[in-house]
Amino acid sequence: MAPKHDNDLEVTDPGSEKTLGYISEFSNGIFAFAITLLILDVRLPADTSKADLGSALLSLWPNYLAFLISFFVIGLFWSAFIRLLREIIRSDRTFIFLLLMYLLFIVVIPFSTSLLSLHLAPISAVVYAALMACAGYTQNIIRVYATRNYRLISKKHSPQSIKRGIRLGLIMPVWFTVSIAIAFFSALGAQISWFLFLIVYSLLWRFTKDKVLV
Amino acid sequence: MAPKHDNDLEVTDPGSEKTLGYISEFSNGIFAFAITLLILDVRLPADTSKADLGSALLSLWPNYLAFLISFFVIGLFWSAFIRLLREIIRSDRTFIFLLLMYLLFIVVIPFSTSLLSLHLAPISAVVYAALMACAGYTQNIIRVYATRNYRLISKKHSPQSIKRGIRLGLIMPVWFTVSIAIAFFSALGAQISWFLFLIVYSLLWRFTKDKVLV
Amino acid sequence: MAPKHDNDLEVTDPGSEKTLGYISEFSNGIFAFAITLLILDVRLPADTSKADLGSALLSLWPNYLAFLISFFVIGLFWSAFIRLLREIIRSDRTFIFLLLMYLLFIVVIPFSTSLLSLHLAPISAVVYAALMACAGYTQNIIRVYATRNYRLISKKHSPQSIKRGIRLGLIMPVWFTVSIAIAFFSALGAQISWFLFLIVYSLLWRFTKDKVLV
Amino acid sequence: MAPKHDNDLEVTDPGSEKTLGYISEFSNGIFAFAITLLILDVRLPADTSKADLGSALLSLWPNYLAFLISFFVIGLFWSAFIRLLREIIRSDRTFIFLLLMYLLFIVVIPFSTSLLSLHLAPISAVVYAALMACAGYTQNIIRVYATRNYRLISKKHSPQSIKRGIRLGLIMPVWFTVSIAIAFFSALGAQISWFLFLIVYSLLWRFTKDKVLV
Repeated sequence: MAPKHDNDLEVTDPGSEKTLGYISEFSNGIFAFAITLLILDVRLPADTSKADLGSALLSLWPNYLAFLISFFVIGLFWSAFIRLLREIIRSDRTFIFLLLMYLLFIVVIPFSTSLLSLHLAPISAVVYAALMACAGYTQNIIRVYATRNYRLISKKHSPQSIKRGIRLGLIMPVWFTVSIAIAFFSALGAQISWFLFLIVYSLLWRFTKDKVLV
Repeated sequence: MAPKHDNDLEVTDPGSEKTLGYISEFSNGIFAFAITLLILDVRLPADTSKADLGSALLSLWPNYLAFLISFFVIGLFWSAFIRLLREIIRSDRTFIFLLLMYLLFIVVIPFSTSLLSLHLAPISAVVYAALMACAGYTQNIIRVYATRNYRLISKKHSPQSIKRGIRLGLIMPVWFTVSIAIAFFSALGAQISWFLFLIVYSLLWRFTKDKVLV
Repeated sequence: MAPKHDNDLEVTDPGSEKTLGYISEFSNGIFAFAITLLILDVRLPADTSKADLGSALLSLWPNYLAFLISFFVIGLFWSAFIRLLREIIRSDRTFIFLLLMYLLFIVVIPFSTSLLSLHLAPISAVVYAALMACAGYTQNIIRVYATRNYRLISKKHSPQSIKRGIRLGLIMPVWFTVSIAIAFFSALGAQISWFLFLIVYSLLWRFTKDKVLV
Repeated sequence: MAPKHDNDLEVTDPGSEKTLGYISEFSNGIFAFAITLLILDVRLPADTSKADLGSALLSLWPNYLAFLISFFVIGLFWSAFIRLLREIIRSDRTFIFLLLMYLLFIVVIPFSTSLLSLHLAPISAVVYAALMACAGYTQNIIRVYATRNYRLISKKHSPQSIKRGIRLGLIMPVWFTVSIAIAFFSALGAQISWFLFLIVYSLLWRFTKDKVLV
């Protein structure tokens, strides 16, 4: 019933369900941890006096902006990831390897966010956009790997819905790739473009009703 | 059997149970992480000498107070959240979006706690109270969304218990909203009001026996 | 079948199993987080030169000692906690409240460990011993609450094994209470006493074979 | 059916499955947390000016290298650990004790990584290699303990696959032991040897198809 592929071994492995449980605990832990770490960069300078508290809080706006964008970017990656993960019914070694590559880019998000909070310069925005794009592409590579010939998913999904899922999964990384051009001119401009993208994307996602695998 | 609503698609989705499992791992991870992060702000100044250790430990009392309040506030949010989550039997996109909004305010708690530990000023207390109130209101919005027309919950709950649950869910955020007025005059006064509130609320919650959905 | 008690309501609540799952995710997350946070205090001073690296690493021995003790203390608390948790078959509000009190002392461990790493003074050791004792007593209070009249556990346990479990659960906190006296004279002496205790206790635990609820 | 051993008590304990669930939540939480903590050491100096941002980012290369190596080392330990854990069908006290020893070395990885990021000296590399080797040996001790006489695993595994699994499990720690010699001469040389090892090992692991318990 399962199609032939390199890792036929694990297809019938009864431990696969357990493995998927460990993968879910580990990945959700990393997502939860990375999203909470973001707040550590929203912090007043140690030498703030009580009199300056109000203005010091206002002057943290680049930190608030970077925090909010990264919070919703991780949230978006997480919600796309769990929608993919719940369709996966077996695991193999390549899947775990690709997953680690993907989680690498998720773990790096607190670093690039911190970079952007501290130095609102084009180079920070370029680094941020490039890393986000890599995270998105890697997520889509996992999707392609898992769905190709129903390697790790059930046969109940139609080829059309799988293809459409892969196409839709490209929207986010392509947007971040395009925004690298904006970032070269203005870090703030790039941030605004990401912010608008997140709002539009969330609304589209919210009101999309077709049965795609996304 | 399930009432009609916008996301009818996911109502019958067999992956919904898995999704709820991921949501629980992710949310519990964030709660666990945010509550443990609080301790990082309880810390002696680096230049404390051994001779001053006792008095330095005593002079940390604003940090202990802020830590204790936030610990029990997060604990209270968590216990209310898991009581809501265990009634939820399906998930949809709006629910995940609202959940992320709610977790945003939970993640921010270590920041507002740190603000209050370092600067016991009215503005810190106003920010703290406002953020806690937002967290509470967002939790209640999730409750309203999930229970309206039995959207995400089972039909076994009576309309009376649902309404009562929503009313009781307002107590905490309304209290924090009211305390903003106190905070304008005295940060310490506001903290004492929260502390008393937590004690009274815990006792009430402990001895409430009616079958409300809270 | 279940004995009468204040929270009869929740005894038959079908959501109880879900709640126990959330409690396990949240508590295990806090334990995992607190035990990993300990390593953040094992850190070379920022101004260490390459030439002094070896001696700087050796001079960190109070940090290694404090780290090792706290690692195994948390490990011991965790292993005792999961042995208790796995016997619990229902949850109620008092249990969740007591659990939060217990987790409060677990969350505080990185603070008291850091105190002891930085200042090897009697007062640090007294604070450490007192907090550990509180954690142990609170864990035993949970045990008493859960087992009294089979409130939250199954009836398969004999009254003898329950009583014996409660007595054995007192060993650790009583030891830390006693060690407060040592701590007043010597912080290092207290640490050595804890270290020896941990070794003896682990060996005893390893070779104990009777069917007690510990 | 289960072979006789010291902890016969727990073999038939119905709570064993629950215990394995807690072990999995706790261990996966520690792995997720330790791997995410690594990013905290990739951080620009506080006094970096905007003009120097590009060169400052490039000069962080020892941090990137140390981060990448440790990320994949933890990833590799994790994937080996979950493959072992999924075969384990009972738990006993010695297993929990060995598990804590193993997790100790995992928790220490952020420290040794930080050491190597800040001071690219032979002594850092020796410490790093020795700690990684210890982690690997401890993992293999768990494997030997769990599989000896089918103590904690099912009888479906052939003695050949078990023996082969133990032999393969030695590759990584032996490599780190050998690399201590390289580390004495050059920290960078040792890092390059680990990096090459990780690539070769991942490829081998990816293309190994035999049914060994690894």
